[in-house]
Amino acid sequence: MISELLPHIESELKKQIARLDQPRTHHFHEMLTYHMGWTGEGAGPEATGKRIRPLLVLLTSAACGSEWLRAKPAAAAVELVHNFSLVHDDIQDNSPKRRGRATVWAKWGAPMAINVGDALFVISNQAIIDLAKDYPAQIVLKAAGILHDTCLDLTRGQFLDMSYEERTDLTVEDYWPMIAGKTSALISACTHIGALLGNANEETQIAYRLFGHHLGLAFQVQDDILGIWGNEALTGKSAASDLVEGKNSLPVLFALGKGGKFAKRWKQGPITHDEVPMVAQMLEIEGSKEYAEKMAQSETEQALRNMEKANPCGKAGDTLLELTNKLLKREQ
Amino acid sequence: MISELLPHIESELKKQIARLDQPRTHHFHEMLTYHMGWTGEGAGPEATGKRIRPLLVLLTSAACGSEWLRAKPAAAAVELVHNFSLVHDDIQDNSPKRRGRATVWAKWGAPMAINVGDALFVISNQAIIDLAKDYPAQIVLKAAGILHDTCLDLTRGQFLDMSYEERTDLTVEDYWPMIAGKTSALISACTHIGALLGNANEETQIAYRLFGHHLGLAFQVQDDILGIWGNEALTGKSAASDLVEGKNSLPVLFALGKGGKFAKRWKQGPITHDEVPMVAQMLEIEGSKEYAEKMAQSETEQALRNMEKANPCGKAGDTLLELTNKLLKREQ
Repeated sequence: MISELLPHIESELKKQIARLDQPRTHHFHEMLTYHMGWTGEGAGPEATGKRIRPLLVLLTSAACGSEWLRAKPAAAAVELVHNFSLVHDDIQDNSPKRRGRATVWAKWGAPMAINVGDALFVISNQAIIDLAKDYPAQIVLKAAGILHDTCLDLTRGQFLDMSYEERTDLTVEDYWPMIAGKTSALISACTHIGALLGNANEETQIAYRLFGHHLGLAFQVQDDILGIWGNEALTGKSAASDLVEGKNSLPVLFALGKGGKFAKRWKQGPITHDEVPMVAQMLEIEGSKEYAEKMAQSETEQALRNMEKANPCGKAGDTLLELTNKLLKREQ
Repeated sequence: MISELLPHIESELKKQIARLDQPRTHHFHEMLTYHMGWTGEGAGPEATGKRIRPLLVLLTSAACGSEWLRAKPAAAAVELVHNFSLVHDDIQDNSPKRRGRATVWAKWGAPMAINVGDALFVISNQAIIDLAKDYPAQIVLKAAGILHDTCLDLTRGQFLDMSYEERTDLTVEDYWPMIAGKTSALISACTHIGALLGNANEETQIAYRLFGHHLGLAFQVQDDILGIWGNEALTGKSAASDLVEGKNSLPVLFALGKGGKFAKRWKQGPITHDEVPMVAQMLEIEGSKEYAEKMAQSETEQALRNMEKANPCGKAGDTLLELTNKLLKREQ
């Protein structure tokens, strides 16, 4: 079913972004299509990303028994929000590469890239209003409201993330509000909007929203664990370890709060590639891995419990469970 | 009447921005209140700007015979859009000062400033949706649609402005689409949304929209003239001349298109302070001043003609005309 949905998502995104495909702004349009993975060097499926968020919107809507095609503009809107935040993130983090390709700011400079992010954000707003073709105005306003609240959460999470960079007094308490904003707000908006557009009742909408919230948290914590103890992180084969990048991940913040050997080393300055296995072991001894795994497990269980409550139906429901399991790297 | 409206605009803006005044994001909130001119060094009426755009929304709405208080969230929304674009503009232009105070990026760095602009933009979206408390959902969606379309125009104008920086082959033809996006789109959105919320009929809405469009163009062209031949620009007493800053203003693009003496000098590199009177005279001799004055005159006439068609009523109508005359520096 996913392979059936993906082309629809792609064509809706292209249609939305084509608003900039006008005389005098072709080059501007091209900057957006490059970022979306459609044009320029390295274009193709590897460059577009997995479109998880729009898939969650469409699958949730369909799993509530509704015609998913109508929800396409909302699916495009969440993916555009995600991509707006990526373009601005890359400037803020000074990242030259994303998915193996030069980032927008690396190609065209930060001033243009700020404007590209802004345009993606504007188009997400236009896309959500496009729902008015097929839904009552009240529902469209509610969907737009959910999306806007989520975007404010994104800026909050981004603020926390940036403000943590200079701090060494962080603990796990500082982790959750950052991740709630940066990762899980948009995932929970996807399942919430999907349920709203699927005409689900209030209770089911809340169950879907919480499903998304915990799914986002579980996914992020898993990602944090793999960023330190994953094969690639430990061997340094391709991905750089989160430890080298100095990322304030859950295992790191847990150990910083303990104030032991790891905390002492962390405060002394950047971890080198050679130190990674030793520092990872330090973290494990201090209980970081066990704690993070327990948290991932707990968030996963809460996600699945809420999904059960939401009771997704039919083929879309099966696919939603499948996608969830894939995201959480669980055996089915 | 303006002095009656301003406190309402300020308090609505404060209420909207208070969404960020929460545990853990007080400092983030403070960045926005600093930019808005309410807090930090140099805070006060000098720092807030004149709130022309929200005034236009409220006055237009009232001049259509409607209760202007209800339109406050829309007034806040347009001012937030304006300020979002200023924060990002300052990063893009590398401007260290705005209204005599350090810009957000100069104080807290570009990464934080990008996020501050994003947050102002998000809150503008939330503000426009707040209209739903007092207006039918259909009207709110229409207002949001106008605002979003305007924001896309802003990014287009910004793209053109930035892409012109490296070019020396520009003519007046390149001026209008840039200014339509950068200046007049938001002004016309103010009067359009004001008329919509004032319950004006379609024809009157269009007249108000065109009034705003031409008002924005006339205002910008006037500003361009003063930026070269204004007292301050010529004497260099306080404001830097647009010529020194290399701004692609209407008089400059007119003369570039002529390909005469001025164009030759312009292409040789930056104009120094000492050269300003001589280069300004060059422009005048080549007909730039006369052309720009004719254009300002023509746009002013079109603005007033559309205002007449819109037929603003009562005290608000008088105030709207007064404000227009002030913006266009005309004798009443």
